[in-house]
Amino acid sequence: MIAEVIFSGTELLLGQILNINGQYIQQTLASMGIDSYHQLTVGDNRDRCAQAIRQAAARADLIFVGGGLGPTEDDVSREALSEALQIPLVQDETALNIVRRIYLARGITMPEVNMKQALIPVGGKALDNRVGVAPGIVLEHQGKIFFLLPGPPFEFNCMLDEQVVPYLKSRFPEEMGIIYSRVLKLCGIGESFLAQSLGDLFKSSYPTVFTCVKGSYIDLSITAKAEDELRARRDIAAMENILRQRIGQYIFGADRDTLPGVIGRELARRGKSVAVVEEECSGGLLTHMLSVDPFSARVFAGGVVLSKTPGLKGLSEGLSRPQGTTEAKAAEQLARAIRRLTGSGIGIAVLGPSQQEALVNNKNMMTVGIDLGHEILVKESLLWDNKSEVARRGAETALVRLWQVLQEIG
Amino acid sequence: MIAEVIFSGTELLLGQILNINGQYIQQTLASMGIDSYHQLTVGDNRDRCAQAIRQAAARADLIFVGGGLGPTEDDVSREALSEALQIPLVQDETALNIVRRIYLARGITMPEVNMKQALIPVGGKALDNRVGVAPGIVLEHQGKIFFLLPGPPFEFNCMLDEQVVPYLKSRFPEEMGIIYSRVLKLCGIGESFLAQSLGDLFKSSYPTVFTCVKGSYIDLSITAKAEDELRARRDIAAMENILRQRIGQYIFGADRDTLPGVIGRELARRGKSVAVVEEECSGGLLTHMLSVDPFSARVFAGGVVLSKTPGLKGLSEGLSRPQGTTEAKAAEQLARAIRRLTGSGIGIAVLGPSQQEALVNNKNMMTVGIDLGHEILVKESLLWDNKSEVARRGAETALVRLWQVLQEIG
Repeated sequence: MIAEVIFSGTELLLGQILNINGQYIQQTLASMGIDSYHQLTVGDNRDRCAQAIRQAAARADLIFVGGGLGPTEDDVSREALSEALQIPLVQDETALNIVRRIYLARGITMPEVNMKQALIPVGGKALDNRVGVAPGIVLEHQGKIFFLLPGPPFEFNCMLDEQVVPYLKSRFPEEMGIIYSRVLKLCGIGESFLAQSLGDLFKSSYPTVFTCVKGSYIDLSITAKAEDELRARRDIAAMENILRQRIGQYIFGADRDTLPGVIGRELARRGKSVAVVEEECSGGLLTHMLSVDPFSARVFAGGVVLSKTPGLKGLSEGLSRPQGTTEAKAAEQLARAIRRLTGSGIGIAVLGPSQQEALVNNKNMMTVGIDLGHEILVKESLLWDNKSEVARRGAETALVRLWQVLQEIG
Repeated sequence: MIAEVIFSGTELLLGQILNINGQYIQQTLASMGIDSYHQLTVGDNRDRCAQAIRQAAARADLIFVGGGLGPTEDDVSREALSEALQIPLVQDETALNIVRRIYLARGITMPEVNMKQALIPVGGKALDNRVGVAPGIVLEHQGKIFFLLPGPPFEFNCMLDEQVVPYLKSRFPEEMGIIYSRVLKLCGIGESFLAQSLGDLFKSSYPTVFTCVKGSYIDLSITAKAEDELRARRDIAAMENILRQRIGQYIFGADRDTLPGVIGRELARRGKSVAVVEEECSGGLLTHMLSVDPFSARVFAGGVVLSKTPGLKGLSEGLSRPQGTTEAKAAEQLARAIRRLTGSGIGIAVLGPSQQEALVNNKNMMTVGIDLGHEILVKESLLWDNKSEVARRGAETALVRLWQVLQEIG
């Protein structure tokens, strides 16, 4: 079964918005074993959207249109589907009730403009929207299934998970779920060296192996398409073994593992907590990564972000950057200070340039200090040239360093 | 002049990666007045990529291919361009020097797999890559221009800014830059009420007006395509006046303004600094937003993120969540504590559920306390249903509240 996804939105073609729905729906389709060869974005233009729907219907079985279901004049997906298939739109009671519901719940009169959102092509059905105003649409026509989904990401995701996936699973119980995959998560190695180490394995046609760089991490996917789940899982496991023999020291987890989560579980196992002090380099992003992940949150003892602005008093004497010393000494003192202040097993300090300093003053050296209690390890790293992402790189570098230290001390 | 952008990457169609390059290139094209009607993603498949290049060349003047220039077997863009145009690939000295350079600088021998990255179609030219290994390619052929750019976002952006834009500007000095636009930034209003207030204006064909929801914010764009810059700017300003009369109280800025930046400038004007204390709800994201923006960084006095894990000591007596009291009282006390501890003009406390608590225990109420020194304002807000984005929503809600409070106190 082949799917094709179309997004409708001039804001996408003007680059005013990042298309995060694109990733979510492709992930969902892949996990159901539905192939996808094209994803297209068109503007808020009825004719071009209709033409895209016709082209997709000629080469795919499932056609998705994301966006263009809002109440404004530039929302054209319903009209484009109607034009592409030559099926008129009519007002639908179910759709109208969905549109009205959120206003009723808030005790507000529904604006007149929302009436348009209750239009559905003849033969189609409204899809409920639990978290927003716009109903979705599903229409089966000449052996193809068309889905129209609202553009706001949370509504798009909810409708996909709660309406579209169950619809497809009950409509095609035999055909779904025959792609199996496992993703190994790597850090501390570059893509070229990975290609060098694994070159021949990338040519494998079953299971397939491919890489995807994600900031400071690399995803290494092993994918098997098979009728037989047991066989697919066995063949994936065999490939994983080969990969682990060659580059095992860089693998920190698999599938849905995150580096903060892996670190959180390792620390929990050792009965240690961690506290963080950061400068405006990573600017709270390391603290955020550790506090938001449910595993690392359990061992997260607290985080402090220091200001670099002169004249501001700061948090306390023990938690300001020491003056007149090296970066390494400062990182060491701050890591010790935050560990003691919070009574944590581990204190980590991240010092470095803010994005502004990296851009304007060409600073690119960051320092990570890790106080383990019995010893303090300090390491300097280059932020490379990626100055627009100083905070993310800084926080990720600190996480990778913390993971490496935990591996080293065993 | 019409452009069409193609991305090559199975990882995009499997949803393993978010296509942030898509936004960047569309923004760049729009700012140069280059129209764009389609953006297509295909997998690492030479034939489908070649077919996409042919289709794009039939309806556009500039054809961009992003991704597929890496050293691995699944990188097929060069080969697809060669196949689409029936032009053979040859090894290029300039390209080879670009590939070698980064290894020379690091004192490492270039892996053999990278040789492939020095191939260029006959008649094409290598584009320098200042921040990575893969050279880009530009090829002029039968009145069309083809650009191949590397997939990693920072390399993609750099090459676009430093190679492609100057190339196009010098190649077509007359045609670039005839779209003018201004984006008004709104918060504290929903899209439907905006549509209700502005409905007739969305029908305007010159200048055009459209909205784009961005999390807790809405972008309201006014766009004019004109030969004459003065006229375009005057007509945009006239439309902006009408919009400000109707919904002025929700507009916090324009164009590249961010809410942290606007708040930072307002606080600097008043000579006030701000300090933050957060629970795992926003989990450091408010601190991060304020510390990373260059304007708010100047008034940012520090941030603290409290742990919710029982048994961990926390930072100090004055900075732990008060027990046995209401959320409102706790927010009040924490806002006061962080303001006093840092000697700041304003202290802000954000309390609420972690994403885990929102998901598992169905908690959705957050509380923002703002201590202005002479008074403390506390407001509770619903996190709506968006449980997968508790941290972002929480931090944005706190920012919006801080901006509203600054407007109210004048």
